[in-house]
Amino acid sequence: MTLTGELLIGGLGVSATAGSMKAFAPATGTLIEPEFAFGGPAEVDRALRMADDAFDSYSHTGLAERAAFLDLIADKLEAVKDDLAARTSLETGLPAAQFEGETVRTAGVFRKFATVVRQGRFLQTAIDPGQPGRLPTPRLDHRLQKVALGPVAIFGASNFPISYSVAGGDTASALAAGCPVVLKAHNAHPGASEIQGRVLQEAVAEAGLHPGVFSMVRGPGNEIGEALVDHPLVRAVTFTGSEAGGMALHRRAQQRPDPIPVFTEMTSVNPTFVLPAALAARGAEIGTTLVQRGMYNVGQACLKPAILLAVDGAGYAELRDAAVAEVEKWAARPMLTPGIHDAYVRNAQRHQDNGAALLGQGAAPAGEADGQALLLEVTGERLLAEPTLREEVFGPTLLLVKLTSAEEVLEAARAFRGQLSVTLHADAADRTAAEQLLPVLERRTGRIVFNAFSIPQEVSYASTHGGPFPATSDSRFTSVGMGAIERFLRPVTYQNFPDDLLPQPLRESNPLNLWRLVDGELTQR
Amino acid sequence: MTLTGELLIGGLGVSATAGSMKAFAPATGTLIEPEFAFGGPAEVDRALRMADDAFDSYSHTGLAERAAFLDLIADKLEAVKDDLAARTSLETGLPAAQFEGETVRTAGVFRKFATVVRQGRFLQTAIDPGQPGRLPTPRLDHRLQKVALGPVAIFGASNFPISYSVAGGDTASALAAGCPVVLKAHNAHPGASEIQGRVLQEAVAEAGLHPGVFSMVRGPGNEIGEALVDHPLVRAVTFTGSEAGGMALHRRAQQRPDPIPVFTEMTSVNPTFVLPAALAARGAEIGTTLVQRGMYNVGQACLKPAILLAVDGAGYAELRDAAVAEVEKWAARPMLTPGIHDAYVRNAQRHQDNGAALLGQGAAPAGEADGQALLLEVTGERLLAEPTLREEVFGPTLLLVKLTSAEEVLEAARAFRGQLSVTLHADAADRTAAEQLLPVLERRTGRIVFNAFSIPQEVSYASTHGGPFPATSDSRFTSVGMGAIERFLRPVTYQNFPDDLLPQPLRESNPLNLWRLVDGELTQR
Repeated sequence: MTLTGELLIGGLGVSATAGSMKAFAPATGTLIEPEFAFGGPAEVDRALRMADDAFDSYSHTGLAERAAFLDLIADKLEAVKDDLAARTSLETGLPAAQFEGETVRTAGVFRKFATVVRQGRFLQTAIDPGQPGRLPTPRLDHRLQKVALGPVAIFGASNFPISYSVAGGDTASALAAGCPVVLKAHNAHPGASEIQGRVLQEAVAEAGLHPGVFSMVRGPGNEIGEALVDHPLVRAVTFTGSEAGGMALHRRAQQRPDPIPVFTEMTSVNPTFVLPAALAARGAEIGTTLVQRGMYNVGQACLKPAILLAVDGAGYAELRDAAVAEVEKWAARPMLTPGIHDAYVRNAQRHQDNGAALLGQGAAPAGEADGQALLLEVTGERLLAEPTLREEVFGPTLLLVKLTSAEEVLEAARAFRGQLSVTLHADAADRTAAEQLLPVLERRTGRIVFNAFSIPQEVSYASTHGGPFPATSDSRFTSVGMGAIERFLRPVTYQNFPDDLLPQPLRESNPLNLWRLVDGELTQR
Repeated sequence: MTLTGELLIGGLGVSATAGSMKAFAPATGTLIEPEFAFGGPAEVDRALRMADDAFDSYSHTGLAERAAFLDLIADKLEAVKDDLAARTSLETGLPAAQFEGETVRTAGVFRKFATVVRQGRFLQTAIDPGQPGRLPTPRLDHRLQKVALGPVAIFGASNFPISYSVAGGDTASALAAGCPVVLKAHNAHPGASEIQGRVLQEAVAEAGLHPGVFSMVRGPGNEIGEALVDHPLVRAVTFTGSEAGGMALHRRAQQRPDPIPVFTEMTSVNPTFVLPAALAARGAEIGTTLVQRGMYNVGQACLKPAILLAVDGAGYAELRDAAVAEVEKWAARPMLTPGIHDAYVRNAQRHQDNGAALLGQGAAPAGEADGQALLLEVTGERLLAEPTLREEVFGPTLLLVKLTSAEEVLEAARAFRGQLSVTLHADAADRTAAEQLLPVLERRTGRIVFNAFSIPQEVSYASTHGGPFPATSDSRFTSVGMGAIERFLRPVTYQNFPDDLLPQPLRESNPLNLWRLVDGELTQR
């Protein structure tokens, strides 16, 4: 695919109105072709007017038609896999093979949402039939389904340039819900963004949908994102990135004359607790795997198991030694952007200034933007005294926390803010301690992993990628898994309607053969 | 029941720390005994610490135990029906019989949520079993259920002193979800609040639950509400009242260091569209019923059908004449508070200053705080030109809008902000116009009523009491109906857990016999 660097608005490619940029190749530290167009508030306005125009027809597409559109996107993503992986590798400094896998997985996410759309359970249809003879007042027929919110603004993330970016899970779930999407491309991977954006644009055209169903804008600085969040026609926002960025958008959206829902996925250290029997039995294995998973994507992953906590005792030294040995094997690798690299160096140093000791490190950086793998250790006392030690260092640093007692385990667990995931390693002899710890962990996270690791993330019906603040801005939702669609839906009740004016999913004959809640009982009639 | 005027914190009655008040009896314009205690931030803190203490045990009660607790509240509410209705009548100037009915209906709501809890579908359990042989990576077992958010702050409403107040639907749904409640009583009905609060407090004790499960505070001015919204231990807020009040709380909560979800139900004019054939066939009947429903609760209802729109033609004069005749029968009746009365007079006058003509009125006020029934009429042109004519006048005023064309119907429909309900009267010959109008209405409301009226509100599985801003602050939720529980729940995934450490609803044997989503298919095994 030839990159033009254009913005994609409705069915068109649109030239720059606010300057342009080149992509940065972290592996070589150079800028690469072509020029990518920047737009501004005028392009945001144009994209949102088209999205709003598209809304009525797109949100009322039949389930089969919408599912076929999602499947088509999946097919077209797979068809550009090699191009997409190669360009993404250039723009991230990460191996192309990783992005071949990410493309296939992301295509799979579109297919899973196609299934969700065909199943139609996301409509959460409920029917309370009329009861004309009820006393003291008759009940009129009530029928409920979920409908799409309206145009959604999605901010692509820097760290997963496919699965959390242009054709990522946010886009898949918003389109599945029936919402047109205006995507703000991340400037860390403009070429990867264009390839995905063109796939979406072409799929919209091939499916015969209104071209306003998908647009992609890009701009310098914060202005374009602010214009998106402020625009009167946007009905919801999703964002994956830093706590500062996410909260600025969230708060800004609540200051609108009409506040809109914002789902931001921000920061998590994914604490890993290793209880004594598990530590004694498997300390070395846990230490090795921790580093292997933690260094995935050069530590630039929201699910990185950044902090491991254990009481010093049998197995602790083995865990530590295995982790040191593993981290020393890691080559320094380029980080996504020079800015991310600089913040990494600063934050890893902050940990050390705050009392974390350097246990081991990977090979020294060769390139300027290379992130060096670091393994730090701190006492529980320091972790409890210094809040920044409990905060994320985005990049290849892991922190071991040496605790002194079971009480300190609980105290440390209570000290963490909200998390995307927490992990518990425990054997049979740890049962009482695990039972004590689990309710404390449950209050603080959207996912509890038992005797496994937080990476990789599964995309399925039972997935949660969410959690209490600051993991996300609204713990009631998830951004990964089939439940992600719920962010973009609202209930509407149709009361006392004649059958032929009802939306199809609510008609008496159940023409779509949906599971429905009839008078409080689930049924497929 | 003897009223003590105390705050109810945990299991205790607590004396005033910030002054006190007497209740106002609108029918006589006098203050009545006893003194009701005011508290401040210290009482809020005490209540929330207890609620937080109660959270772990209460949120983990078994479904049967929690359902029995809700049924007990229902029984105890019914047992105080006569006392509660009499006191509420005194404090509102509305007939006791109305509150006997409201008590019975509200007890019914607690019983319905007991059923919801027993059914356990609100847990939205999903199981994706492990697939150890999957390529390229095995799938670990994933199990999801919804869990309670934490302590909830509920602001009682002024206008429905039982169903939207202390023992109202917000409290029922939060307790059903497993959340302790700290309720801010509305000062318009302190005695009715105390009776309900004591019912809840006693039910907590009788059920053997932690006393922090329910507390009720009261204070002068906004300080106590702000303290509630700001408190670090509050995890969600609900509010029913004015747009200004609701938005102040919503925005305040988003400025917290950790923003929390706020559901505010604020303002709606519930537009009623009468299409030509229906107008010709049933104009008079619609006019009469409109006034009868519109004057319910002296027009102090969020679902009041405040604005009726129709194209001038056959049946319009009959509708207008019937409405005039009906409104002239209405005696002026005391409004809930002198402040609400003053705002009513001011806002009804504003409509007239903005071009609404007075078509008819009820009997002149006898008492100072009596609200006089008014029927106003305005052209479509004025309605479109003057936004305040599309805003709520809280009280017994209804507005007819005389339109000139089918195009003006659509234009007027598009001009409204978000609504709790909209109503469409249409006959077979109106079908094409109805089909054009329905998508426009669907975008603007949580409920569409067909050939019926927005009042009464049904509380069932298919109910929605929600809608786009400013009807509510988050259109994805409802505050009435079984779906109201979703405001207080969040998903948690348990990954790779041993069966005996899983929460009961997720165990392999399905001991609670729940409907569960297993590998994407609904099943009761």
